[in-house]
Amino acid sequence: MVLVGSRNPLNIGAAARAMSNFGFRHLRVVNPYEIAFREARSAVGAAGVLAVAEEYKSLAEAVADCTLVVGTTAVRSRELHHPLERLDEGARLIRQRLRSSPVALLFGSEKVGLSNHHLSHCHWLLHIPTHPEHVSMNLGQAVAVSLYELARGRKIERHTNKMELATAREVERITSLLLEALRLSEYLSPGSAPPSEEKIRRLIRRLNLQLRDSHLLYGILRQIIWKLRSEQEPGSNEASIQLD
Amino acid sequence: MVLVGSRNPLNIGAAARAMSNFGFRHLRVVNPYEIAFREARSAVGAAGVLAVAEEYKSLAEAVADCTLVVGTTAVRSRELHHPLERLDEGARLIRQRLRSSPVALLFGSEKVGLSNHHLSHCHWLLHIPTHPEHVSMNLGQAVAVSLYELARGRKIERHTNKMELATAREVERITSLLLEALRLSEYLSPGSAPPSEEKIRRLIRRLNLQLRDSHLLYGILRQIIWKLRSEQEPGSNEASIQLD
Repeated sequence: MVLVGSRNPLNIGAAARAMSNFGFRHLRVVNPYEIAFREARSAVGAAGVLAVAEEYKSLAEAVADCTLVVGTTAVRSRELHHPLERLDEGARLIRQRLRSSPVALLFGSEKVGLSNHHLSHCHWLLHIPTHPEHVSMNLGQAVAVSLYELARGRKIERHTNKMELATAREVERITSLLLEALRLSEYLSPGSAPPSEEKIRRLIRRLNLQLRDSHLLYGILRQIIWKLRSEQEPGSNEASIQLD
Repeated sequence: MVLVGSRNPLNIGAAARAMSNFGFRHLRVVNPYEIAFREARSAVGAAGVLAVAEEYKSLAEAVADCTLVVGTTAVRSRELHHPLERLDEGARLIRQRLRSSPVALLFGSEKVGLSNHHLSHCHWLLHIPTHPEHVSMNLGQAVAVSLYELARGRKIERHTNKMELATAREVERITSLLLEALRLSEYLSPGSAPPSEEKIRRLIRRLNLQLRDSHLLYGILRQIIWKLRSEQEPGSNEASIQLD
């Protein structure tokens, strides 16, 4: 589970406590407010989970080893660029993936939720069905409900085929290379605005890359970039070596 | 939903907020700590539910109009005298009953949960399946998870036959009469300890009385009590009138 930019120590503590309650262990926090995180570490009933919680500077690093990244949203007016799954069906998909590889479930800050930048790292979004007039849940409660549903179906399901999927680290490497290639090719301007980057990031996630395909794609993009660079700096052409 | 003896305004607020999120409206609080309740009323996102929340001096009054009273428990070491239902199955039973009459779902205080006295007002107990090493949930989170599960199956189920059941008020009247009868008959000593009272209270709940049967039983017990009293005070016998 990944908490992004949480400010309230009570909520960090509550999230960790819900993890303990439902048997989840790996908490990662991205850019937590130092003080909030320190206070939360001393909270009741969450000691174990918080003691081994890992801190990251960026979301990309926090989800690097996962093959599925799921964001949570209250689905207000914000325009969504992602497939949206209701908690019960979404939990089924997450459990399925958890059998073969790690999954990241993201929760945003209390005030603003997950930003469009954060969402662009997600494959799809999860929402808890709430009353139309009161969609916004307390963070600790949203975490508890989500993990309850995830734990709920644990025993019922049978195994399915495994398929080795690319982790978020590999997918993000592909994304970076593609962005670089698009800038070099002037598809994107050098200082291109985040919306375009996010659009690309979502595109790559929708591909649901298998591991071997990500390797292939990586090689292809490195080659393209090498070529694009060498075109811009003709003199350096002969000195370059092929990267892959 | 009934909160019994909650001390923490944040938890009362969180419980109310979860109710709003999942479309539940009727909050009753028994013996809340005045200050906690006042503070909670000013909490974020729960205004509507808390504004119309009702305060009661006793649990019996708070659940008087309900035909089913369900307690929540973390099932630690405490010896249980009640049937225990896991949240998913329990929620199904509650939804079923809600179609014909009000149901009370009780949550105890953060520190001690529901006392044996409170539990003796319950027909059965609900528990959220948690990790054996971390069974104790935060109150606000337990409420959120329970109401999520209650709301979860709302649309799936079909209607069943209605049967008019006795409300908790009627069941408690029967209980009082029976206790009185048992004291008069010296089955219970006049200053009898709570455990015996609670045993009786549970017994009556297990009967799952229908409304018309509760009327019948009421008449029977009044009659027995009248008789027992007149035996103790022989001189007043003729002056008594039959009560039912």
